[in-house]
Amino acid sequence: MPTAALEALRAALDATGFIDASAPEAKRYLHDWTGDYLGAALAVLRPRSVEQVQALMRICAEHRIPIVPQGGNTGLVAGAVAGGPPSVVIVSLERLNRIREVDAANFTLRADAGAVLQTLKDAAESEDMLFPLALGAQGSCQIGGNVATNAGGINVLRYGMTRDLVLGLEAVLPDGNLWQGMTGLRKDNRGYDLKQLLIGSEGSLGIVTGVEVKLFPRPANVETAYLGVGSFADAMALFGMARRVCSDLLTAFEVIGSECIALATLSNPETRVPLGGEWPVHVLMELGCSSAIDGRALLEALLAEAFEAGLLGDGTIAQSRAQARAFWAIREDLVEGQAKRGRHVRTDLSVRLSEVARMIEEARSYVLSNWLGWEPIAYGHAGDGNIHFNVMPPLALSAEEVRDRGGDLLDGLYGIVRGLGGSFSAEHGVGRSRRAVYWEWLTPEQRKAVAAIKAAFDPMGIMNPGCLLSG
Amino acid sequence: MPTAALEALRAALDATGFIDASAPEAKRYLHDWTGDYLGAALAVLRPRSVEQVQALMRICAEHRIPIVPQGGNTGLVAGAVAGGPPSVVIVSLERLNRIREVDAANFTLRADAGAVLQTLKDAAESEDMLFPLALGAQGSCQIGGNVATNAGGINVLRYGMTRDLVLGLEAVLPDGNLWQGMTGLRKDNRGYDLKQLLIGSEGSLGIVTGVEVKLFPRPANVETAYLGVGSFADAMALFGMARRVCSDLLTAFEVIGSECIALATLSNPETRVPLGGEWPVHVLMELGCSSAIDGRALLEALLAEAFEAGLLGDGTIAQSRAQARAFWAIREDLVEGQAKRGRHVRTDLSVRLSEVARMIEEARSYVLSNWLGWEPIAYGHAGDGNIHFNVMPPLALSAEEVRDRGGDLLDGLYGIVRGLGGSFSAEHGVGRSRRAVYWEWLTPEQRKAVAAIKAAFDPMGIMNPGCLLSG
Repeated sequence: MPTAALEALRAALDATGFIDASAPEAKRYLHDWTGDYLGAALAVLRPRSVEQVQALMRICAEHRIPIVPQGGNTGLVAGAVAGGPPSVVIVSLERLNRIREVDAANFTLRADAGAVLQTLKDAAESEDMLFPLALGAQGSCQIGGNVATNAGGINVLRYGMTRDLVLGLEAVLPDGNLWQGMTGLRKDNRGYDLKQLLIGSEGSLGIVTGVEVKLFPRPANVETAYLGVGSFADAMALFGMARRVCSDLLTAFEVIGSECIALATLSNPETRVPLGGEWPVHVLMELGCSSAIDGRALLEALLAEAFEAGLLGDGTIAQSRAQARAFWAIREDLVEGQAKRGRHVRTDLSVRLSEVARMIEEARSYVLSNWLGWEPIAYGHAGDGNIHFNVMPPLALSAEEVRDRGGDLLDGLYGIVRGLGGSFSAEHGVGRSRRAVYWEWLTPEQRKAVAAIKAAFDPMGIMNPGCLLSG
Repeated sequence: MPTAALEALRAALDATGFIDASAPEAKRYLHDWTGDYLGAALAVLRPRSVEQVQALMRICAEHRIPIVPQGGNTGLVAGAVAGGPPSVVIVSLERLNRIREVDAANFTLRADAGAVLQTLKDAAESEDMLFPLALGAQGSCQIGGNVATNAGGINVLRYGMTRDLVLGLEAVLPDGNLWQGMTGLRKDNRGYDLKQLLIGSEGSLGIVTGVEVKLFPRPANVETAYLGVGSFADAMALFGMARRVCSDLLTAFEVIGSECIALATLSNPETRVPLGGEWPVHVLMELGCSSAIDGRALLEALLAEAFEAGLLGDGTIAQSRAQARAFWAIREDLVEGQAKRGRHVRTDLSVRLSEVARMIEEARSYVLSNWLGWEPIAYGHAGDGNIHFNVMPPLALSAEEVRDRGGDLLDGLYGIVRGLGGSFSAEHGVGRSRRAVYWEWLTPEQRKAVAAIKAAFDPMGIMNPGCLLSG
């Protein structure tokens, strides 16, 4: 164990910046929030300035100590925890957490990488603006982690992934130098757009230390509808119509297979579906606009046209914010209900919008034909082509059996998606848990390009080994 | 001269695919459309399939013959013409020009790289959709060139740069292998987003052969206003208000300094400004929406609020498409008028929206104080922070004097923009004509990263030498 290196790291930080791996307070940095991954590390480092990040990067580079950068540690693919033997340090950005500036006239906000997403959203709202990135973990995930993983969420439909929201970046590269790109410019066409490489690189190329993001006008007028339709194909046709009628003012278009309702009820027995009659597919749709636009009339015009076209079975427009929250609660409760149901097979699939219905149909048919007693469910961000097609195991199976057999089931689902030209990771990333399938699907040219970029930025391979690339 | 290589290239193409550099029909590929740059080449190659592009790339790699990829050859920074001695081949994509597929349900279109932008726009429109990229050269520029240069234009405000419109790419890399990324997925979070590197790389990393782009609902309802305001600061405040009131349905927010009107008149003596009274800054604003939204009422609500707030002097909303075209004609005629005026100093500057007014003020003051008889004008895409601040020389100066002295003036303007954290190239790119200033402004870390990417993808340096990087 490189004691000299650890002493140098300790000296580069303040007293509370260095946590011994054996200390009780180190524990929460060593496992991911699912509890499935428990790593080990030499130490946990908590820099509180960009200069400290540079200093520790230089020490680690000198001593060849691998670094695992960690934000809010809310990822779903084990990208921010150490995977192998305890030869790495965890670098937590949690103390580098200031909102640096809101530039209201530029519709932008600058923040340290460790600032919690919710604090960015609050800072925007205090200027009557919106930072639209919205995910379940927004109360604890950090903007630097959102950038490193190109986080998605429920507002991607209108505002895009994190990549689309980033106007500037600042990062410490593996040689300890600061890469400065916090321009805040909307148009800047000078050569390679290097920040695009860091976005979504999962800590494998450097440590993001600062971010400048786009803000948007806050929609004063939000309308929410809960709809019942006859099939996923109808839901997708309705989506196409909704885009056209609503001029891309839609902020969400979520589908929920009716089989998910039992899971929502498992989490919340008070669950009431606001539909008359049984419909195989539910759609939760939201649009946002300024007070100068009559959002209610727009939504009503859409629903009338959809009903006329035979795409819509039944539906309710929320009459209050409370009712809108109740609609969204069904979507949130079904996720909770899955967790309550126990270990299951989870996916984060995407295909072209024109293949969503087919993908769900093929996957469902595959499970029902081949996996007796396993129950497929489908829900997700249909407007983005992103479906969480999950499978609940027979209740009699143990967690170990579910894990073991679930791997084969997952392979089957991935095969279907691959055949349709889709992705096994629409938004969760690759991390450690999806690395094998990631490399398996890459073409030789793509493998070569990925390896070349890694080698160009991190020739010693000290950045997050085992995540995205092999360790 | 490598005769064997040229014979191999000739054999790899069909009879009309290989043009001798000395042939008269080679001429139009050798100079850029401004006529300022006249290059030389060994030959002009016109592949008509992706396989032919691969074949010629492999031959060039084997013989170390540099390649200059060329699309519609409408760029403004000499990125697609050979700069140095005649040791290169020009590869024109003009025969690789099919629309491959419109996937209406996915809101996407696939095309060969050599397809002319207007043909993509027409194909989208035939499905009642919109491909929003819009530039003066759209009748002759090619989508592959748009991607390689990350083209901007007049609809960036609502729809983004070309980068934001690309969902998939296919490119031949310098080793002749095909990099395949035509997924058409809206969400795909698998590792490094390699297509981002090729977008805006100006032919320095490979040859784009196919593109998949996003389509949008075609706004049935377009409203256009021509407004007079008291200052650029007021124009920018009006922009902020317009974003909020109009829920980002704005498609254009162009500013025109009143001094530009004389240039519009020079091109078109019938120019009539639709304003009562004299206003120092004119704003051309457009919004687009579906027929289910009352765009006229929205625009009127905005103008009433702006007038109330003292931001608006006078204005006219177009009552017909003909009147809207007349408003836009002023914007187009001023560009023509500049060309008619003769050689002048042109820029393509961007700053944060919060610095636009200050940048124009500082630049104007610099010219008026230091450059007797030179006349500054300012117009551009203010909603993107992108201003074309150009300077007309005294009429008595010769073209040579303008070129020589204009370089110093340009340095002065660039200094101002650099001081404000802006860019010397908002949308035109770097090419050959801006390479020196590009490298001058880069930090050592940025230079290193740019060189590392180039070395990783094009280790032999055969792709477009002299463009972006030195030759």
